[in-house]
Amino acid sequence: MTINNAQPARGTRDFLPADVRRRSHVIDIVRAVYERYGFEPLETPAFENIETLLGKYGEEGNQLIFKILKRGEHEASGTADLALRYDLTVPLARVVAQYQNELPRYFKRYQIQPVWRADRPARGRFREFYQCDVDSVGSTSPIVEVEILGAVSEVLTTLGFRDFVVRLNHRRLLSALLEAASIPVERHNDALIAIDKLDKIGRDGVIADLGGRGIAAGAAGRLLTSFDLRGEEALRVLAPLVDRHEAGALAIRELGDIVQLANATPAGARLQIDPSLARGLSYYTGAIMEIAVDGIGSLGGGGRYDNLVGMFLGRDVPACGFSLGLERIIVVMTERKMFPPEIALGAVDAVVTFLDEESRAEALRFASELRAGGRRVDVFPDAARKFDKPLKYASARGARVMAIVGENERARGEVSIRNLDTREQQAVVSGEAVAAVVRLLASRAPGN
Amino acid sequence: MTINNAQPARGTRDFLPADVRRRSHVIDIVRAVYERYGFEPLETPAFENIETLLGKYGEEGNQLIFKILKRGEHEASGTADLALRYDLTVPLARVVAQYQNELPRYFKRYQIQPVWRADRPARGRFREFYQCDVDSVGSTSPIVEVEILGAVSEVLTTLGFRDFVVRLNHRRLLSALLEAASIPVERHNDALIAIDKLDKIGRDGVIADLGGRGIAAGAAGRLLTSFDLRGEEALRVLAPLVDRHEAGALAIRELGDIVQLANATPAGARLQIDPSLARGLSYYTGAIMEIAVDGIGSLGGGGRYDNLVGMFLGRDVPACGFSLGLERIIVVMTERKMFPPEIALGAVDAVVTFLDEESRAEALRFASELRAGGRRVDVFPDAARKFDKPLKYASARGARVMAIVGENERARGEVSIRNLDTREQQAVVSGEAVAAVVRLLASRAPGN
Repeated sequence: MTINNAQPARGTRDFLPADVRRRSHVIDIVRAVYERYGFEPLETPAFENIETLLGKYGEEGNQLIFKILKRGEHEASGTADLALRYDLTVPLARVVAQYQNELPRYFKRYQIQPVWRADRPARGRFREFYQCDVDSVGSTSPIVEVEILGAVSEVLTTLGFRDFVVRLNHRRLLSALLEAASIPVERHNDALIAIDKLDKIGRDGVIADLGGRGIAAGAAGRLLTSFDLRGEEALRVLAPLVDRHEAGALAIRELGDIVQLANATPAGARLQIDPSLARGLSYYTGAIMEIAVDGIGSLGGGGRYDNLVGMFLGRDVPACGFSLGLERIIVVMTERKMFPPEIALGAVDAVVTFLDEESRAEALRFASELRAGGRRVDVFPDAARKFDKPLKYASARGARVMAIVGENERARGEVSIRNLDTREQQAVVSGEAVAAVVRLLASRAPGN
Repeated sequence: MTINNAQPARGTRDFLPADVRRRSHVIDIVRAVYERYGFEPLETPAFENIETLLGKYGEEGNQLIFKILKRGEHEASGTADLALRYDLTVPLARVVAQYQNELPRYFKRYQIQPVWRADRPARGRFREFYQCDVDSVGSTSPIVEVEILGAVSEVLTTLGFRDFVVRLNHRRLLSALLEAASIPVERHNDALIAIDKLDKIGRDGVIADLGGRGIAAGAAGRLLTSFDLRGEEALRVLAPLVDRHEAGALAIRELGDIVQLANATPAGARLQIDPSLARGLSYYTGAIMEIAVDGIGSLGGGGRYDNLVGMFLGRDVPACGFSLGLERIIVVMTERKMFPPEIALGAVDAVVTFLDEESRAEALRFASELRAGGRRVDVFPDAARKFDKPLKYASARGARVMAIVGENERARGEVSIRNLDTREQQAVVSGEAVAAVVRLLASRAPGN
C-alpha cells in the first residue's frame, strides 16, 4: 500500500470541529448584525475568468494570484484561463455590472468567503483565508459611511470587544495636506507610502524616508505636525489650512458630517479623526477608516472607492466598504478567551450505550426521543459488556450524560442514567428517562 | 475606460441575496439535524497538494480535476503542484490520517463545502457545486449505517419531503448474486456498470448490454429476476441463493440488521431493500444506499467504504458515508415551492427616510432603536422631498413599513409611520414609534 502525504497544502489549514465552532460563532454574529443593518448576503464563485482579476491589484497583486491551468488538450500549453478569487471587492464590482437591472439602485451586501493569495506563509499569514466584507454601492451620502461604521462597531461590541477605536480620515484631506506642505502632486503616492509606516518607523524615520524621496525636511515636519492632531480638534485646526483647496474643504465637511451623524449609532463613542491614517490601497477616493485595538493593531479597515465598479460597468458608481479581519479577530478572541463557554463544550450532550446486541433497537429508540427534544446525542456503536470504552469515548466527545440499556433495563422497562461528572447512576422508568436526562443536563451551568 | 466582461466563469454561478437565503435555509437545517445526531463540523482547504487528489478518482476523474499552476519563477514551466478539491471524501481520509491522535477513535463528521469538477456544463450540472457529506469513521457496526440513514431521513423530512424512499443494497450481495448467476468474477465490474443503467435502458437493454460483454442471456435473466424483488421479501428469497457464499450470507445478515434497527429511527418507514441498486463508485465495500423521490430521481447516496482511509493512514479503517445532493434538493424545493414564506420575504422590515438634512441624525437614531429590537432596517441615504424614490426603493427591498422624519415630525417630537401595504400613514410620538412599527410588522402574517 502506498501511503500518501496527509498534510494540507502549504499555507492552508484544516479546521477541525472545535475550530469550525469558533469560526461559526463569529460568522453567525457578523451575519446577524449585518442583516439588521439591511445588508444582504452575496456569494460568488471561487474562481473567475483570469482577465477579471489580472490588472486589478497592481503588479505585486498579479504575482500573488493563483492561476488555474487549462484543461484537456489545452493543458499541455501550460497556460491559465481561470484564477482563484483574490478579494471580494472585484467580484462585487463584476456582480454590480452583470445584474444592474436586478439589483436595487442602492445595493448593500455582505460577503463572507475565502480568498487565496500566494503569499509566503508566515505566522498568522495564510494562502487561504476568509474575508468578511460589507459594502454599499450607489450613493455618495455620508449616511453610507455612518451605517457601515455603526454596523462594524456593533459587530465588534457583540463579539465582546470593549477597547477598540474607529480611526477616520479622508483621502482628499490627505491630498490637501500634502499640497499645503508644498509636496508636488507627482510625489503624493510616494509620500503616502512613507506616511503609512509612521506607526512602525516613527516620526524621524518618516522624515528620513520622505527626504530620500526628495521631500524637504521642513515640508515633512509641517505635515507630521498635522498628523499629531486627533478628533474634532484636528478638523478645527486643519480646516483653515485647506480651505482654499476645494477637495480639502469638501473632505473637512464630509468628515464633520460623519462624526456628527455617527453619534446616533454604536460607532459614535468609538470614532476618532486621525489625519495620519493613510490605508494602503490605491483605489480609495474619499473617507477611509480603520478599527484598531491597543496592543493588537488593526482588526479591519475600509473606505470609499468611487471608481472601481466602473471597470466593469462602463460608468462610475459610488461605493464604500469595510473588510473585517476575520482571521485576526479569531486569533485575538482565542488568546483573550472571549468565546462563550458553550463553544468550548463537547460535541454531544449524551452518549447512549447498549450492553448486548438485543438492546440495540432500544438504545436507538431512546436516542431518537432525546434528539426529538433537541439534544445532541450519540449512540456508541458496539455492545459494551464493560464500560471503559464507551466511558472513554463519551469523555472524548464531551458528553455529560450516559444512558445505558441492557438486558436488566429492558426486563424492567427502564433506562440507566449516569451523570458523567459525579459518576452517580440510577435506573429510571423508560417513560421518564428523557425528562431525567434533560434535568441532569440543565442542572449544570455550561462551562462548569 | 476599458470595460471588463462581467460574467462569472463558465459553469459557475453568482448567488444573489435571494439565492443565498434559499441555500442557507437548507444548509442550516442540515447542520442542525446532523449536530443532533452527534456529527461534528469539518472544513478543509479548497486546494490540496496535487498528489493528494491524483489517482483517487480513476482516469476519468483525473481529467476533471482543476489544476493550479506553479507560481513565480516556476510559472513558466507550465506545471501544476496544487489542485482544487474534487470531493469531500478524499480530504476526510487525509484528515483522519493527519490528526489520528487528536480525533476520537470513532469520528463522525459532516462537511458542507463546494467542490470543483471540469465537467462540460449542462442544465443542472455545474463546475462549482456544494457537497453535503456525513461520514462515520472507525466502526463496522450496523449502528453506523442506521444512524446515517436516520439523520439523512430526518433532514429530508424537516426540509418538507414527504415522498422519498431509502433504497438499500449491499455490494457483497451483488457479488454473490453475480456469482450465483455464473458470471465470472473478472466480469463483475462490467456487469455492475450495465446493471446501473437498468432504470434508463430497461430489462431488455441490460440483457443486450450484458450479452455484448459476453454474459449469457440465461445468466442475465436469472440476475434480473432477483432484481425485481423488494423489501424483506428480497432477503427471504435471496438468502438460500447465496447461503453457501460466505460474503453473500454476511451481506444478507447485515441488511437484515439494518432494516430491523432502522425501525427505531426516522428512516424505518422509508427503507426498502432493492437488490438492483448498484451505485457507481468503485470504492464501496458493504451496504450501499440511495434516497430517491418518484419522478425526481436520486437526492443523494452513499455506502460503506472500508479501504479508502488506508491510502493515507497505512492501515485500513472502516468508514461509511452519505452525500446529500444539495444543488438538486434546492432545485426541487424551488420548483415545488417548498421554501417557507419568510425566505421569500424582503431583505428588510422597514426603511427609514428623512425629509431634510437636519433630520438625518434623528433618522439614524430611530433606525438604531428598531435594530436594537432585532428588526432589519435600512436608512434611505438621501434627503427625500418627494416620496417616490424612497417608496420605490422600499418596495424593491420588500419593506413593509416606512418611517419618516422631517422638520414637522422633529418639531412635534414624532415619527411618521407608513404602512406600505395599505398606504395608511400616521404620526406617532417618538417614545411610542418603535412599538408602533413592531405592531404593524406583526399585524400581517409573513407571505401575505
